[in-house]
This record gives sequence, C-alpha cells and structure tokens, in this order.
Amino acid sequence: MREPFHPSADSLDLAAILAALSDPTRLTILLRLAEADADVRCGDFTDLATKSNLSYHFAKMREAGLVSLRNEGTSRFLALRRDDIEGQFPGLLDQLIASAQRMEGRTRKPQIADSPDAPRNRAKRKPVQA
Amino acid sequence: MREPFHPSADSLDLAAILAALSDPTRLTILLRLAEADADVRCGDFTDLATKSNLSYHFAKMREAGLVSLRNEGTSRFLALRRDDIEGQFPGLLDQLIASAQRMEGRTRKPQIADSPDAPRNRAKRKPVQA
Repeated sequence: MREPFHPSADSLDLAAILAALSDPTRLTILLRLAEADADVRCGDFTDLATKSNLSYHFAKMREAGLVSLRNEGTSRFLALRRDDIEGQFPGLLDQLIASAQRMEGRTRKPQIADSPDAPRNRAKRKPVQA
Repeated sequence: MREPFHPSADSLDLAAILAALSDPTRLTILLRLAEADADVRCGDFTDLATKSNLSYHFAKMREAGLVSLRNEGTSRFLALRRDDIEGQFPGLLDQLIASAQRMEGRTRKPQIADSPDAPRNRAKRKPVQA
C-alpha cells in the first residue's frame, strides 16, 4: 500500500484540526487513540461506522495532522500525532480529549440507564443523548 | 428584530462548538470577542467578510452556543458565552483562544514583513504576528 500524505508538523492548521474533530465519530476515534496510547489497527474501529465512512474519517484526521496512518503488511495502523500537535498548540490536544471525555460521559449516561444489559460493543457503538 | 434562538447551556455540543471554530474567520471573531471582553457590535466585524458571510458566521457560532446575539435598537451585539462553555467544558474556551492566538501569530508574520506601515485598521483586519 502507498504511504498516505501527512502534513508536516509546522504546517498544522488550527481550523483544520478543529474541523477534523467536529464530528462525534471522530471524537470517539480520538478518545480511543488517547486511551490506547499506542497505534491502533484501523480494523478495530469497525463498530463505529462502515468501512468507507471510516476511511473518510481517518482521512479527515490524517489530512489535518491529528493522526498518522501506517501500513504494515495488509494492515493499517492509526496513531495520534501527540508531539507534533503539542509542539504547535501546547495543551490543546489534552484539553480536547478532556472535553471529549466529558461529552461522552454526558451522552452515554442515558443509554446505560436505558439498557443496563446491553453488550459492551453496543454501548460503544452509539454515543447517545444527555 | 426577533431574538434569535440560543441553545441552552446544558445542551452545548462539543462537535458543534469545534465545527463553529473550524474556520479562520470565525477564529478571528473569537479572538476579537475574547480581547474585547465585552459585547461587540456586529458591524465592527465588517472588515472580515461581507455582511451576508458575517451573518452566516455569526449564526454558526450562535447555534453552537459559542456566542449570544443581542438586539439593541437597530444594532446587534455579539458576546462570548464564556460561563456557559466553561460550565460544560472547563478550560476549553481558554485553550481554544490560546491556540487561535498562536495560529494568528504564525499566519501574521509575512504580512507585517510585507507592509510595515499599514494603517492600524489594516493591521487589525488580518490576524498578525505575536
């Protein structure tokens, strides 16, 4: 597979980064990457969206410089570009992650209440309603 | 004039807030409001975009709960919803403002170099150098 384009650290654009996170699915991807604190196989996000939607989300995040995509054999791995973002906008990424966690906390609550026995991947799938 | 709709503080959505700031003009509006630390007349932003574009930007920011719009006589005033955002996402607004300032600092550089004697309102017009 061809290595996809990644913007250089010093060309990171704030508006593009915020646009890349202006979507609930992409915020969830951000949270999972932050929690994993390691590369995550792209295939591990298939509970969030269809494959073609995921490709779109990954591309948005990659083009904004939020994540890097790495090919390894037939797999692709996604990683947060922590250091690059921190270098350009100190504190921003941690703040966005913290805010996304708060948002997720708010939206998850009722779902847990509605379906206490829902399987784990179900609860993950649709972040819903305060 | 009819008072426009404003989302309640507890319904503020992170993805919507980030979308409302995923545009350089709206980031500049945010910075000016933060610097003013007071209501700003909508007419004071006409150096940034055409009136109809500005209306669109103000609406995006209002619908996301970033700003409130207030009618007074024939004028409209814009204000940051600092407390509401801080209540939902502590630290987020200050971090976004700080990042926007850094971004502005970076993008301003060449302009100052190009026109050191530009009049003051000109300097305001285009985000310039920290």
